[in-house]
Amino acid sequence: MGKRNCNNGPVSSIDSGSVGVVETHSVRLFDDGLTTRSGTVLPVVEVAYETYGTLNEARSNAIYICHALTGDAHAAGFHEGDDRPGWWENMIGPGKPIDTNQWFVVSSNILGGCQGTTGPSSMNPETGEPYGLDFPLLDMRDFVAVHRGLAAELGIERFAAVVGGSLGGMQVLQWAMDHPRDMGRALIFAASSRLTAQNIAFSAVGRQAIMRDSGFNEGKFLSRGTAPRKGLSVARMLAHITYLSEEAFQEKFGRNAQQGELSGNFGIDFAVESYLEYQGERFLSRFDALSYLYLTRVLDYFDPFAATDALDLLKADPVRFLLVSFTSDWRFSTEHSRRIVRHLEGARIPTSFREIESRWGHDSFLLDLPDYHATVRAYLDRAAEEIA
Amino acid sequence: MGKRNCNNGPVSSIDSGSVGVVETHSVRLFDDGLTTRSGTVLPVVEVAYETYGTLNEARSNAIYICHALTGDAHAAGFHEGDDRPGWWENMIGPGKPIDTNQWFVVSSNILGGCQGTTGPSSMNPETGEPYGLDFPLLDMRDFVAVHRGLAAELGIERFAAVVGGSLGGMQVLQWAMDHPRDMGRALIFAASSRLTAQNIAFSAVGRQAIMRDSGFNEGKFLSRGTAPRKGLSVARMLAHITYLSEEAFQEKFGRNAQQGELSGNFGIDFAVESYLEYQGERFLSRFDALSYLYLTRVLDYFDPFAATDALDLLKADPVRFLLVSFTSDWRFSTEHSRRIVRHLEGARIPTSFREIESRWGHDSFLLDLPDYHATVRAYLDRAAEEIA
Repeated sequence: MGKRNCNNGPVSSIDSGSVGVVETHSVRLFDDGLTTRSGTVLPVVEVAYETYGTLNEARSNAIYICHALTGDAHAAGFHEGDDRPGWWENMIGPGKPIDTNQWFVVSSNILGGCQGTTGPSSMNPETGEPYGLDFPLLDMRDFVAVHRGLAAELGIERFAAVVGGSLGGMQVLQWAMDHPRDMGRALIFAASSRLTAQNIAFSAVGRQAIMRDSGFNEGKFLSRGTAPRKGLSVARMLAHITYLSEEAFQEKFGRNAQQGELSGNFGIDFAVESYLEYQGERFLSRFDALSYLYLTRVLDYFDPFAATDALDLLKADPVRFLLVSFTSDWRFSTEHSRRIVRHLEGARIPTSFREIESRWGHDSFLLDLPDYHATVRAYLDRAAEEIA
Repeated sequence: MGKRNCNNGPVSSIDSGSVGVVETHSVRLFDDGLTTRSGTVLPVVEVAYETYGTLNEARSNAIYICHALTGDAHAAGFHEGDDRPGWWENMIGPGKPIDTNQWFVVSSNILGGCQGTTGPSSMNPETGEPYGLDFPLLDMRDFVAVHRGLAAELGIERFAAVVGGSLGGMQVLQWAMDHPRDMGRALIFAASSRLTAQNIAFSAVGRQAIMRDSGFNEGKFLSRGTAPRKGLSVARMLAHITYLSEEAFQEKFGRNAQQGELSGNFGIDFAVESYLEYQGERFLSRFDALSYLYLTRVLDYFDPFAATDALDLLKADPVRFLLVSFTSDWRFSTEHSRRIVRHLEGARIPTSFREIESRWGHDSFLLDLPDYHATVRAYLDRAAEEIA
């Protein structure tokens, strides 16, 4: 255990597989600001991050976690007083697939987010007001630039592995392609290198629900005391449909009534309606509509294999890749992962690929599925042997 | 040609396969009002309908068309001055699969709609204001009651066939189960007898977009001079994603820019965004948000095989069924049609089933697909032989 993440704290219900009580830290990066890919300079970039486990003397046992669309830095353990652990508690901890007895894990909130890292709701130092839509449009490479800035701050030159699912996996791919010397292995789960028209369509409708909400106020809602709460919750409900498989929806809810028998009304009558309502409401307390716009748009434009020289750096300094997809994921189906595999194998980059049987859809990458966890564990065991 | 639908009118561009210039008629049904399944009486029920072809002396050559969620009575031919024909022009007309040289075709707007038939935007005679949410919740059997009222008005006791796709097919199924003597054949395309949790989820999110729009005003927007335009267009955009297959989206739009190259913004940059925007906007000029709520909710609750005696009437007076599904339809996949087939065959009802190869998704039932049209044509040819 690292000093900051002592497992002997007052939370008595934490099992031995947890990193225990943790804190989110904050650091300001880039003394001269960050020039984003759009050319706009962000004078202030603060990053929220957590670490779990202990960095060894050789500084060779670090793993970096990139989170998905609505994740945050709090991937594992418990914040003081919280009942719920971080979002990847089943993956990260002592004895877990990403074993903190072995690895020093870094997890940060991405640029453009709303959980402690600079984003469109942060104060624009030039105006003293929140950026709103004056925040620059972001690119996957901007996320990577900030991850690298944090790594430098922590004194880590090379990660044994960089790991992420969905949008997190896309960050891993971009990072590995542009800076292959930064990592030994890249673990990419349920991700894509190129959204389909249908993927973009779902994103676009979610954004329209937000931007058309009368509370959106052209993105100046924070200064004006309004909020596109209805639009954001609709966007979240819609997104949730794509996170689960049709089969999972059927198994969890079927045509069950929320209470007793179906009564016939326009309210919450079916259990599935109650689930969506709950997901939409809960999201409001932890997420910002502007971040939702900015982060989803990065996915739409992501297309890293488009350039003919896209893989030149990786060819010179190969990273080992593990790609994982899930059979019932219809947001980023196995075909998306296969496409990445084809590009990498075409460039003779060492690539392992596993399609995991799961009926839970896209969210499978967040679940404790034995085949999936065993795959990750075995892959990282090999990495551990290399640095031992 | 029927007298009303003369094909020698002034529209010179109409091909010989069209019924030509047509008009929508209106009739008031039920002198004593209609008691809906909810128990509420609608004192006034007006129905918009069109007819094509000529009713024979025996009154035995009539076919009834039930439209889908956002359809209307104008299924074929051209309204005076219009450039665009009715929504099923490729299916209905002289020489078409539903051949108006042979058949007398009746097509009406459903109860709860907004294209001439009484619905939640109609005036409530008790208040002198639009019904809004005081309109009763509808049931598939209410649609059927109004279809039968129109049939009685037209003096047609029995239809050679009743035909519909999607929600239209669900009306056909309900009608056949409850009043099998009303028809010889039931043709049901791309339909379902029981929505899945995912189907309901999509409906629910669309309705939430409408009801959360600040213009909705608890359904009293017509009296208050507002309209949930943003919510209705978002609901329509979302629905359109489910009407096309992922493959069709990819083939039509891929990642193409709307104009020139992708420019990077939150507006309409991808072609698929432009398509959705257009569909959302166009819908506003022809559809009412209240009808959208009422009609989608009928689909959610539809579950005609739930009762143990559901098929007793059909067993006594069998109707011949044709079920058609489409390979890439993910709104009502082939499994939905197979389920209906299993119920009917279990009751020894004569049932034909065809799954048509199509990459266009749910909207396939509206398209001119040779295998599909040949199937319908052949099925109706046998019906024609029987009444000859």
